Amino acid sequence: MGVDPGTRYAGYGILKKEKQKTFLVEYGCLDVHKKKCLVDKIGAIYEFIFDKVSACGVTHLALETPFFYKNASTFLKLGYVRGLLYLIASQKDLILSEFSPSEVKQGITGYGKATKEQVANVVLKLFHIKTPQRDDVTDAIAIALCGLFNSGDPRGN
Amino acid sequence: MGVDPGTRYAGYGILKKEKQKTFLVEYGCLDVHKKKCLVDKIGAIYEFIFDKVSACGVTHLALETPFFYKNASTFLKLGYVRGLLYLIASQKDLILSEFSPSEVKQGITGYGKATKEQVANVVLKLFHIKTPQRDDVTDAIAIALCGLFNSGDPRGN
Repeated sequence: MGVDPGTRYAGYGILKKEKQKTFLVEYGCLDVHKKKCLVDKIGAIYEFIFDKVSACGVTHLALETPFFYKNASTFLKLGYVRGLLYLIASQKDLILSEFSPSEVKQGITGYGKATKEQVANVVLKLFHIKTPQRDDVTDAIAIALCGLFNSGDPRGN
Repeated sequence: MGVDPGTRYAGYGILKKEKQKTFLVEYGCLDVHKKKCLVDKIGAIYEFIFDKVSACGVTHLALETPFFYKNASTFLKLGYVRGLLYLIASQKDLILSEFSPSEVKQGITGYGKATKEQVANVVLKLFHIKTPQRDDVTDAIAIALCGLFNSGDPRGN
């Protein structure tokens, strides 16, 4: 499972490797925005991801290493959500791996400075997704794919 | 309950207001340092605080608002732990309040620029604690006291 966490939207993608093939089991985005206060948002994100991990039998969790951006308050809130993901990794015994943004771009497009659109295009084509998705979603799938690349050979090459 | 969270030590203090008196129910410090990896540390902090909240029937959680310090990585990890506290507030329906460092100092010593030692001295005297405590612990008790001040009149004055 790859997660692109935020306190407004949390994108996720779950991949499954069977024999030499990689399947996109599920993907989507939790709209956290609806919840009013931060405590409720944090509770909703945790419950959502925890339930997905349980329902899909997730074994590995992949995240992107954050870089300090925008402002300290946004960065700290990103920390809150990442803390939840670390907690779920601990509670569900998941193998957690992290990739820098350039590692994700390099892994998916072959180019470490690729744009978000280029990453999205590769992800959409690779898994035959026809409707455009939010960046949070394609990023999460890209991160999941990086996790799979790292733990073996997901494309069967 | 007041918590002074960190990924090395997590201080806590639990106060109880009965009639017009305030009691220090429990206080201490979780030594997170022993756990090897961050995932295990996060799991241990969550479990520890969750259990204390359950066992002591905590209804209010008080935290200090963080200010950006040291480096981005430390700040982000503080975010991880704060995320857990927000989660516990959500799961256990706690009333969460936050105070700036100067509000805590002002509330305890009457002086917003008091030193950690001055805060510790007031806390130790107020609750007749004879052995010195780590800053994390006296700070956590001070934060809890601020939470109580905020929700009524804990000293019975």
